[in-house]
Amino acid sequence: MNLHRILILSLLLSVTAAMAGDPPPEAWRTVDPDNLVLIDTKYGQVAVEIAPEFAPNHAARLKALIRAHFYDGLSFYRVIDGFVAQGGIGEGTASTKDHPEEAKTLDQWPPLKAEFDRAFAPQPKFTPLGNADPMAAQVGFEDGFPVARDPKAKREWLIHCPGTFAFARDNGPDTASTEFYIVIGQSPRRLDRDLTAFGRVLSGMQYLQKLERGDPDIDSGVIADIARRDPIVRMQLASDLPPDQRPEFQALRTDSKSFADAVASRRHPTSPFYFRKPRPVLDICGVPVAVKRVSGP
Amino acid sequence: MNLHRILILSLLLSVTAAMAGDPPPEAWRTVDPDNLVLIDTKYGQVAVEIAPEFAPNHAARLKALIRAHFYDGLSFYRVIDGFVAQGGIGEGTASTKDHPEEAKTLDQWPPLKAEFDRAFAPQPKFTPLGNADPMAAQVGFEDGFPVARDPKAKREWLIHCPGTFAFARDNGPDTASTEFYIVIGQSPRRLDRDLTAFGRVLSGMQYLQKLERGDPDIDSGVIADIARRDPIVRMQLASDLPPDQRPEFQALRTDSKSFADAVASRRHPTSPFYFRKPRPVLDICGVPVAVKRVSGP
Repeated sequence: MNLHRILILSLLLSVTAAMAGDPPPEAWRTVDPDNLVLIDTKYGQVAVEIAPEFAPNHAARLKALIRAHFYDGLSFYRVIDGFVAQGGIGEGTASTKDHPEEAKTLDQWPPLKAEFDRAFAPQPKFTPLGNADPMAAQVGFEDGFPVARDPKAKREWLIHCPGTFAFARDNGPDTASTEFYIVIGQSPRRLDRDLTAFGRVLSGMQYLQKLERGDPDIDSGVIADIARRDPIVRMQLASDLPPDQRPEFQALRTDSKSFADAVASRRHPTSPFYFRKPRPVLDICGVPVAVKRVSGP
Repeated sequence: MNLHRILILSLLLSVTAAMAGDPPPEAWRTVDPDNLVLIDTKYGQVAVEIAPEFAPNHAARLKALIRAHFYDGLSFYRVIDGFVAQGGIGEGTASTKDHPEEAKTLDQWPPLKAEFDRAFAPQPKFTPLGNADPMAAQVGFEDGFPVARDPKAKREWLIHCPGTFAFARDNGPDTASTEFYIVIGQSPRRLDRDLTAFGRVLSGMQYLQKLERGDPDIDSGVIADIARRDPIVRMQLASDLPPDQRPEFQALRTDSKSFADAVASRRHPTSPFYFRKPRPVLDICGVPVAVKRVSGP
């Protein structure tokens, strides 16, 4: 008996194998090392691709912070299971006092104007998912990122899925400055277009899932005991590393036939495992975009 | 600046505090210790409430397996980040040979008839979510469990959300026997009504998230190196423990006014943090049912 076929099967439909054969070389896009952020945790390295075209000022700020080594040695000080891992200095929390030196530098990083959404790209690469979405008029993919759109206003924004990278903020829209969060649970779509999301995890989600959690009922999940917080060991931009020391990632082009085939076979599974065929409706956050690491240390 | 308010706020809306004040004592339901499964991992204890009324034969089998100490010392041998943690003997995989003694006992546990769904309960406690769902005609809660319904057929079933507990099976519908899985990622709704789901994690998801992962591209996520697999240290039924050694959990009644209030404030957040109000549409798997541990070791 192959009881494990539930997983073989689901895998076929959830990772890369749903495509008829391996995608050809031209179906893959090499991730720009200037948009590849490497976050070293004590459990392993997390690779995040950022999308500067969705939030140019936030992306520039993130790169500047990384190059100033701002994050190195700070921590994931508020980690809520099923929701987000938040990293940085803990502005506005007792956590700030734990980092007096870094806190002194905060006035170098003034609040940013919100970049919650953007005008439709002039040459849209938008690939529609192909079914309705509960939270937006249109959803689909651009360069691998899950995107929602308002066709009337001609605005688009990144969707909060597991692995989405965004900047935290205060109540005011234009208040993000240094802190980031990464979604580690069921897609919190309510945050869409209300925070500046501009990246997605390409690999290493399992390391974020190992991060020490806070108690959401105590100080909204801030881990009071500094010794219990897991550090941000280091954050680097791949393009700042010597070429032979950079990891290189490729992501399946979401405007490729290979991706369309993968979506189609996910929508209409043909395996006999599906005793009852599921509704042919896909969750934008449940459609993986295949990623492979092709080189690097 | 309170950049962390994103979390304070989201917490208000995601955990328990969305209710106006603490729910009164009558809004809480004590979890029956005979339906409370305790899974000891090396990272901590996971508490699962099972729903025998949805799958009486699977629930009885699970209890019998637990009482036979079948699982103790086996492992989470296939763990796929963002999808499921699967535990047991690895029937049909190379993993079986790692447990020759337990494998000999497998003929004691013949395949079960599928219990993918059930007739509507005679006195339904079903509380509708209050908005459409992409995958089912109706969704809502019964005794804290997320449930989908087919009103024409008058059938209902548990939904695959993060934390859902179910039995794995082979391609045939009536082939589940001993292996279980727990969802640890974005809701795999395509599995709804196609596998026998009959429980949900009440606490300890963060320990499941720490489990060592397999590589989904290699042997569908089976961790080949036994030394790398995280063990199922022990599984117990709370009712088999002396009363003073049992943890006791209470779950918010999903047919209570307190729960309705929590859902309403999640649907229509009033905090100024929501610069742009989200669509008043909730994801059944994104609506938490508050749980508290009221006593126990």
